[in-house]
Amino acid sequence: MANRAGVSTATVSRALRGLPSVAEGTRLRIVRIARELNYTITPSASHLASGRTRTIGLVAPYVNRWFFGQVIFGVEEVLRAKGFDLLLYNIPDASSRDRFFDVMPLRRRVDAVAVLSMPLSKEQAQVLTGLDVPLGLVGTEMDGFACVRIDDVAGATSAVRHLTMLGHRDIAHISGGGPAAHSFTTPRDRARAYHDVLEEAGIGYRPELEAVGDYTVAGGERAMSALLSGATRPTAVFAQSDEMAFGALRAIRHSGLRVPEDISVIGFDNHEFADVLDLTTVEQPVAEQGNLVAQILLDLLESGGKPPPTMMLPTHVVVRGTTSPLRTR
Amino acid sequence: MANRAGVSTATVSRALRGLPSVAEGTRLRIVRIARELNYTITPSASHLASGRTRTIGLVAPYVNRWFFGQVIFGVEEVLRAKGFDLLLYNIPDASSRDRFFDVMPLRRRVDAVAVLSMPLSKEQAQVLTGLDVPLGLVGTEMDGFACVRIDDVAGATSAVRHLTMLGHRDIAHISGGGPAAHSFTTPRDRARAYHDVLEEAGIGYRPELEAVGDYTVAGGERAMSALLSGATRPTAVFAQSDEMAFGALRAIRHSGLRVPEDISVIGFDNHEFADVLDLTTVEQPVAEQGNLVAQILLDLLESGGKPPPTMMLPTHVVVRGTTSPLRTR
Repeated sequence: MANRAGVSTATVSRALRGLPSVAEGTRLRIVRIARELNYTITPSASHLASGRTRTIGLVAPYVNRWFFGQVIFGVEEVLRAKGFDLLLYNIPDASSRDRFFDVMPLRRRVDAVAVLSMPLSKEQAQVLTGLDVPLGLVGTEMDGFACVRIDDVAGATSAVRHLTMLGHRDIAHISGGGPAAHSFTTPRDRARAYHDVLEEAGIGYRPELEAVGDYTVAGGERAMSALLSGATRPTAVFAQSDEMAFGALRAIRHSGLRVPEDISVIGFDNHEFADVLDLTTVEQPVAEQGNLVAQILLDLLESGGKPPPTMMLPTHVVVRGTTSPLRTR
Repeated sequence: MANRAGVSTATVSRALRGLPSVAEGTRLRIVRIARELNYTITPSASHLASGRTRTIGLVAPYVNRWFFGQVIFGVEEVLRAKGFDLLLYNIPDASSRDRFFDVMPLRRRVDAVAVLSMPLSKEQAQVLTGLDVPLGLVGTEMDGFACVRIDDVAGATSAVRHLTMLGHRDIAHISGGGPAAHSFTTPRDRARAYHDVLEEAGIGYRPELEAVGDYTVAGGERAMSALLSGATRPTAVFAQSDEMAFGALRAIRHSGLRVPEDISVIGFDNHEFADVLDLTTVEQPVAEQGNLVAQILLDLLESGGKPPPTMMLPTHVVVRGTTSPLRTR
């Protein structure tokens, strides 16, 4: 095999394990010859030789939502370029989460683990730490994890200030509620920013202007319908996600009101359909967060050491057609 | 370990391997005790014992697009319930595909493989067949694979007939073109249906009413802009996917025309945003195709045997606000 490829046995081994020290052309040539010879790389043997599985575990709550699809794409893109495989776990509800952390199927199967935008209890974090591999976290932070996130307070602050600067004072908030809202940074930080901006603008907080969505279109529509049937009709709405903002747009239009003439709407994410629906929003880099966490985990595998400080990526308001200055009724 | 759980060693082994013969309560109890004892199931040992990895490989071209996210969710849902893991491979371009089939990282790592909506060359299919595990295919069919798909001809026929029955004759087609269009059933079958319905309605085929998208919003927008600048302005458009239809809606509105008053638009998929954008479309079951292919693969693992005949799932037109009867100009 090494003879036929005209390289050393060590190079064949390195090439078949996908190590970066082998030139790409050489590697592909060796792989082709290996296939012709029906030469198999058994992952377990390769594992024994390198002490590694060349597999990264990825844990997400909703693989079928836009945000998560983009982050998974970003992680996979970096792993693929380096010849690493991706074991994907989707744990959308409490029972699948409990079961996942009880069974912990990642044990001895992966070199590192990335967790996407999910609140982790101390006990769950301990189970992961017990795997004794580098750990990454996207969208929030926790000790012992390499964290990649945005500044949710800064992003939501810029969204609500965009509305106050347009003269709005009756500003509603569609929050990303549910039982996890108090413990998870994303809904908590965005809600805090809403309250703080109202205060800094001298606008009193009115609980009747808040409604709970669940980061879905349907949840946003329900929340907006509730807000429209309240005593104070808002002139502007901050939705904690674009998906909830899309639902809010539907509810507003179904009620016969116009956007932005009657009600301005701003979302959060710059979802791929924000442009299609002409939604003003806060853009965050999404696939890039996946790229970064994967790159950091591979670096930790290569060089060892402790997780680097949290990487905080910038956000900015993208002004489109769903927000406009307050009009006198 | 078996003593402490009050069950036989064989039951412990079955429980830790997640076999269905152990009651769920017993299994969870054994798993908890195993964790307390820091008892590790090494996947390779479990593999040796059962001859199985309890892992399914999933190969997709675009994990970050809606359709694929839904199918992946559907596959993962069934695997999770049965304690199987998912190795995910995203191969979005020619070079990553070539590399994937050259290296074939799934070898000896998975019990079965599902491929999502991707044209496979004979050589690529042979590489997969060489893995000697059950193979599944979603969205198209091929000998030797357990196939789950929709009837693309029937679905597209109902879409174009919806337009002819509304009186339209200048019906444009936004195809899912690109180099793969001739070999892959999805774009080919949907295009054939468009041509056949025009013929059955006695409407001549006019190449200037066809434009190529690439199943994306941006591609649909470009295609529609090209159609609008042609000699014959269509009164209706069939787009081969909802994402292309969303782009077409944008292009039509940007040109100052109204939907459906000036141009009717029908898409294909019933994307989660079709409802938000009030798009008439052809609904296909998506996550269900993922559920089904996973279930069939697990059944083949359990009982052996040959792949069952192709499962063809039904589609139907969902009429919303973007289509209306032809109006005399």
